[in-house]
Amino acid sequence: MIKVGIVGGTGYTGVELLRVLAVHPQAQLHCITSRSEAGIPVSDLYPNLRGHFDLAFSEPDVAVLCQCDLVFFATPHGVAMRMVPELMAAGVRVVDLSADFRLKNLDVWAKWYGMPHESPEWAGKAVYGLPEVVRSELHGAQLVANPGCYPTAVQLGFLPLLENKLVDSSRLIADAKSGSSGAGRQASVGMLHGEVGESFKAYGASGHRHLPEIRQGLSQAAGTAVGVTFVPHLVPMIRGIEATLYAELHNVGDFDRLQELYEERYRDEPFVDVMPFGSHPETRSVRGANHCRMALHRQENSNVVIVTSVIDNLVKGAAGQAVQNMNVMFGLPEIMGLEAPAMLP
Amino acid sequence: MIKVGIVGGTGYTGVELLRVLAVHPQAQLHCITSRSEAGIPVSDLYPNLRGHFDLAFSEPDVAVLCQCDLVFFATPHGVAMRMVPELMAAGVRVVDLSADFRLKNLDVWAKWYGMPHESPEWAGKAVYGLPEVVRSELHGAQLVANPGCYPTAVQLGFLPLLENKLVDSSRLIADAKSGSSGAGRQASVGMLHGEVGESFKAYGASGHRHLPEIRQGLSQAAGTAVGVTFVPHLVPMIRGIEATLYAELHNVGDFDRLQELYEERYRDEPFVDVMPFGSHPETRSVRGANHCRMALHRQENSNVVIVTSVIDNLVKGAAGQAVQNMNVMFGLPEIMGLEAPAMLP
Amino acid sequence: MIKVGIVGGTGYTGVELLRVLAVHPQAQLHCITSRSEAGIPVSDLYPNLRGHFDLAFSEPDVAVLCQCDLVFFATPHGVAMRMVPELMAAGVRVVDLSADFRLKNLDVWAKWYGMPHESPEWAGKAVYGLPEVVRSELHGAQLVANPGCYPTAVQLGFLPLLENKLVDSSRLIADAKSGSSGAGRQASVGMLHGEVGESFKAYGASGHRHLPEIRQGLSQAAGTAVGVTFVPHLVPMIRGIEATLYAELHNVGDFDRLQELYEERYRDEPFVDVMPFGSHPETRSVRGANHCRMALHRQENSNVVIVTSVIDNLVKGAAGQAVQNMNVMFGLPEIMGLEAPAMLP
Amino acid sequence: MIKVGIVGGTGYTGVELLRVLAVHPQAQLHCITSRSEAGIPVSDLYPNLRGHFDLAFSEPDVAVLCQCDLVFFATPHGVAMRMVPELMAAGVRVVDLSADFRLKNLDVWAKWYGMPHESPEWAGKAVYGLPEVVRSELHGAQLVANPGCYPTAVQLGFLPLLENKLVDSSRLIADAKSGSSGAGRQASVGMLHGEVGESFKAYGASGHRHLPEIRQGLSQAAGTAVGVTFVPHLVPMIRGIEATLYAELHNVGDFDRLQELYEERYRDEPFVDVMPFGSHPETRSVRGANHCRMALHRQENSNVVIVTSVIDNLVKGAAGQAVQNMNVMFGLPEIMGLEAPAMLP
Repeated sequence: MIKVGIVGGTGYTGVELLRVLAVHPQAQLHCITSRSEAGIPVSDLYPNLRGHFDLAFSEPDVAVLCQCDLVFFATPHGVAMRMVPELMAAGVRVVDLSADFRLKNLDVWAKWYGMPHESPEWAGKAVYGLPEVVRSELHGAQLVANPGCYPTAVQLGFLPLLENKLVDSSRLIADAKSGSSGAGRQASVGMLHGEVGESFKAYGASGHRHLPEIRQGLSQAAGTAVGVTFVPHLVPMIRGIEATLYAELHNVGDFDRLQELYEERYRDEPFVDVMPFGSHPETRSVRGANHCRMALHRQENSNVVIVTSVIDNLVKGAAGQAVQNMNVMFGLPEIMGLEAPAMLP
Repeated sequence: MIKVGIVGGTGYTGVELLRVLAVHPQAQLHCITSRSEAGIPVSDLYPNLRGHFDLAFSEPDVAVLCQCDLVFFATPHGVAMRMVPELMAAGVRVVDLSADFRLKNLDVWAKWYGMPHESPEWAGKAVYGLPEVVRSELHGAQLVANPGCYPTAVQLGFLPLLENKLVDSSRLIADAKSGSSGAGRQASVGMLHGEVGESFKAYGASGHRHLPEIRQGLSQAAGTAVGVTFVPHLVPMIRGIEATLYAELHNVGDFDRLQELYEERYRDEPFVDVMPFGSHPETRSVRGANHCRMALHRQENSNVVIVTSVIDNLVKGAAGQAVQNMNVMFGLPEIMGLEAPAMLP
Repeated sequence: MIKVGIVGGTGYTGVELLRVLAVHPQAQLHCITSRSEAGIPVSDLYPNLRGHFDLAFSEPDVAVLCQCDLVFFATPHGVAMRMVPELMAAGVRVVDLSADFRLKNLDVWAKWYGMPHESPEWAGKAVYGLPEVVRSELHGAQLVANPGCYPTAVQLGFLPLLENKLVDSSRLIADAKSGSSGAGRQASVGMLHGEVGESFKAYGASGHRHLPEIRQGLSQAAGTAVGVTFVPHLVPMIRGIEATLYAELHNVGDFDRLQELYEERYRDEPFVDVMPFGSHPETRSVRGANHCRMALHRQENSNVVIVTSVIDNLVKGAAGQAVQNMNVMFGLPEIMGLEAPAMLP
Repeated sequence: MIKVGIVGGTGYTGVELLRVLAVHPQAQLHCITSRSEAGIPVSDLYPNLRGHFDLAFSEPDVAVLCQCDLVFFATPHGVAMRMVPELMAAGVRVVDLSADFRLKNLDVWAKWYGMPHESPEWAGKAVYGLPEVVRSELHGAQLVANPGCYPTAVQLGFLPLLENKLVDSSRLIADAKSGSSGAGRQASVGMLHGEVGESFKAYGASGHRHLPEIRQGLSQAAGTAVGVTFVPHLVPMIRGIEATLYAELHNVGDFDRLQELYEERYRDEPFVDVMPFGSHPETRSVRGANHCRMALHRQENSNVVIVTSVIDNLVKGAAGQAVQNMNVMFGLPEIMGLEAPAMLP
């Protein structure tokens, strides 16, 4: 039984961790912290958990967290980097769902997140936890940086093309769309139902924090610095990300083997599903599940490969992938606690 | 291992049965029939099930169904009543999610469903499967009529008042609201996204098929014929039913003990959750889960008891309750396969 | 040309006033105030108004407001009652869209709004502006209290029954449902898209501020103090209110003349549409329009009259009715600026 | 007064035409046809029009249509091309909202629409009615092909770049998203609320009928055959299209003058609004209005121009643009009947 702590459990990522952990046979929730809700039973804030958890939110207390085998950070950026060194020293393992340990270049991190990084030592040691890429490193990892939601959908979709150097990596385009839960659970006018409902828009089109993370991951896969344009959009739905990816094949003839290449790349991956060529994956087909589904497309004789890739931003894009990472770190079956199908309709 | 068959598996109730059965440790899908989709793999129609079921839809074949321990009917009304006698004769147990065996008065049935009943013998023997009322009869039952979605939410909310004869049972009001999945998955203009989205309306206000079913259940609980007005409404969401119930207390002083009475009535029920007095249960708190959550309310010095009751129409209102019934029929733990919390947000 | 001022124009009621006034041939916007957004062009906050208004929000300034012929208050309660006396003294006419002048009993007002009333004199003189009831008083009115959204839908639906003393006025029930824009445009967790979307719930079931307003209006129509239970609900859509009303006929035989009675009552009303008996008015049929549509229903032989009534909460429930009141006050055609049909789909 | 006929008025385009014409001071509806609904009052099908139109749908009758000054076709493809020659012969002017007369290359038309074109003569004479491009030709036009919804949003967004030969026209990308009303009002499982709600997907990613129309328009603007990849997506909302467009500047230095160039190009256009650089136009800012709003973006030092462009697919993408075309054809003020601001929220 893994003794689990959660720091910052009041947001959508926190409640989703609880929903997944509630059915995980090898994880036991030891504590869940929240400054703002300390003392409040978890199930008062989230009635769906009534009967599943008796715990109340508690003030963050490092001593209590140090009793855990694993601590998840479901906090805004800037929190984990301050607490991680102490937990590392105590031998506690950490999966950080925030952005603190995702970027290797800390100048880039500081620029995009507006503050200096306070734990450069551990930033260097953290494993960027996309299991489909770094599974072997996860086994012994003490600190795992859980990937962002957009970067997960975009990287999984582009990887086979870049790893095999089939496309012009200087002109990649990722047009991505997310449900509103990606913005978190903070009060804001812009995310009111009356503002988000029945409307669609791009945002962050001149630059979004997930851009450097995407660029880092794709460049590593390509073995060279890639050029990528990334535009996120807000969809009037709660869960789900769809990324439509565009890349130019060096050799149009490669179109014939792309489908097989993708299927081969992900054949043994429990959470990546390559659909038949020309399929249209829907976000609802992964709602509540840890899967990434994708499909390939071509228009007439074009040399442009189109990949459509969907995930649930709160599951494979956050809490589910965090538990998948935990499973690998602790030598458990990778799908443990993540077996249920997506909820459709 | 229970060998399970499903007749009519292409609708929303069918796919929900599959979603629940996919994680049920004691149920094994033997066959799933559909005239229109025969030959098509289940996961082609429902990509969320890719990797969970290898089966294809098959033509309905009684011989194959007779190999099952249990057959679920997820068909329009009129189908089960024709096939049930043969299955009964073969010793197969049946949970019918359609309306065929819900009403005891077959004249009433014929009037509301527009056809004569073809299996009056089995209609008399069928157990109306609201486990919170008839649990003991379910153990040996061969044929269970799974309650309708509205009737489940309405009956559970009214039961303690009527069983204890606390209210004027001649003037009950049930104002109920449902998501669009309650209308099923048939092509129709009226249920298009462009018609249902961003709008709200009553429907069937002059009489809905669930009215006689509600009346039957409430009358049985009250020990007398009740008078109930039932108005359903269509909500621009996919899943969920909320019923707001109104009844007049004979004795205003009884308000003081209502909360305790409700808690007592449902204390041992795994799927009924009485929230604190004055709470406002949300449909999302039961989305994907088999729970009914409810709360009591009073306005100033009024003698009107207000009960708000929520379920997921596809789970406690259909597939989940069907599996709950199966669990009881086969002596399994009642919550088996139904443990996961609701999905929120 | 009527010189119009708006106090508190940043909320949904404010932008809706602007949308209506943009096409009103006899109204000219003189100033629009907002403490928080002073200096910001109106069309920066509301891009739909780009090209329609050049004005910027300004700090509230009574001297500027006193240059207006009419001032609309689109403020939270408690603001208008402090500014109105000065405007009255200057001969400016006011339509207050907030709750400050709606209740005649100021003890009741103080209890529900949590503060003493600061303008009892004008509270007594204000006309409660439901034109279908008080049209003649509006002509000369200097101060009009624009009705609340729920009270508009509920009163219009009940009026013919009560005015004709056909029903038991001690047991009225109003089950009402509103889109999210009714909660305004303040940042709050509870009104986030991720909280409101795909869910339905009652709220304020133990008592809502519109209850005393409804009771006052219905009691006046009935000529006696009525007993009414009012439960509001939150619908995952932006605009629209539906109220399902229940009342018991004294004489079942009156059912035969109800439809004609309703049609007669509203025959000359430009904004009330009585649909054929048994119709199901949808909120989208009045989206963006100043209409209230309603229909009558009966279940079998019941003595319960069911009325379903829909409005757009921002139009007939707020800004549209305010402009309708303005039109009557200034002797303009009542429908001026309010002619466009609802937007469907 | 223009005597107007509408063929095929039961779909979303038809009701939207009626909504716009209801407030048009110079248009009078003479007849509206529908085979399936002949005899039914328009306002029975569309209650938002109660009180606005007394007309009933009639069987299509060329003799009656020939009494009109202008006939709108709001039909599926294949209908207008058969009826147009007779109307032309009678001197009736036509705006065809279907696809019949949009493509100049009839082989391409036949390939994408799956039937031979039956009116090649008039296909050659039809004016492709994007007023921002062909205003002068519209004045005398007898037959106008109203552009498709996606092509309108995409062309307006790309035009200034292509007309000025600033970008590599061989690698244009248009990632477009539409609300569900774009699919029309035919009964279909795929467009049910339960299928479309709370989900997002690409569709037609291997080729959509609007691709050749987009290619034709952009090639004409560029003066050379362009290469364009176009992927449409389905958004869980009713109205609105957003197109995110990507193009590579030949000369990065041109970024400095792009904003001015766009503003200059559209300065005199009543229905195109270029927002400040880096703005994020929302579809709701044009809901119900005939505007196209757009903005330009750049990511760091990239040479990729990003244009985001929004329209209401039923207005500027269909009925509004049709009335705009009518206004120009008949020498009326171009904005007549189209002055109302968009409905937000």
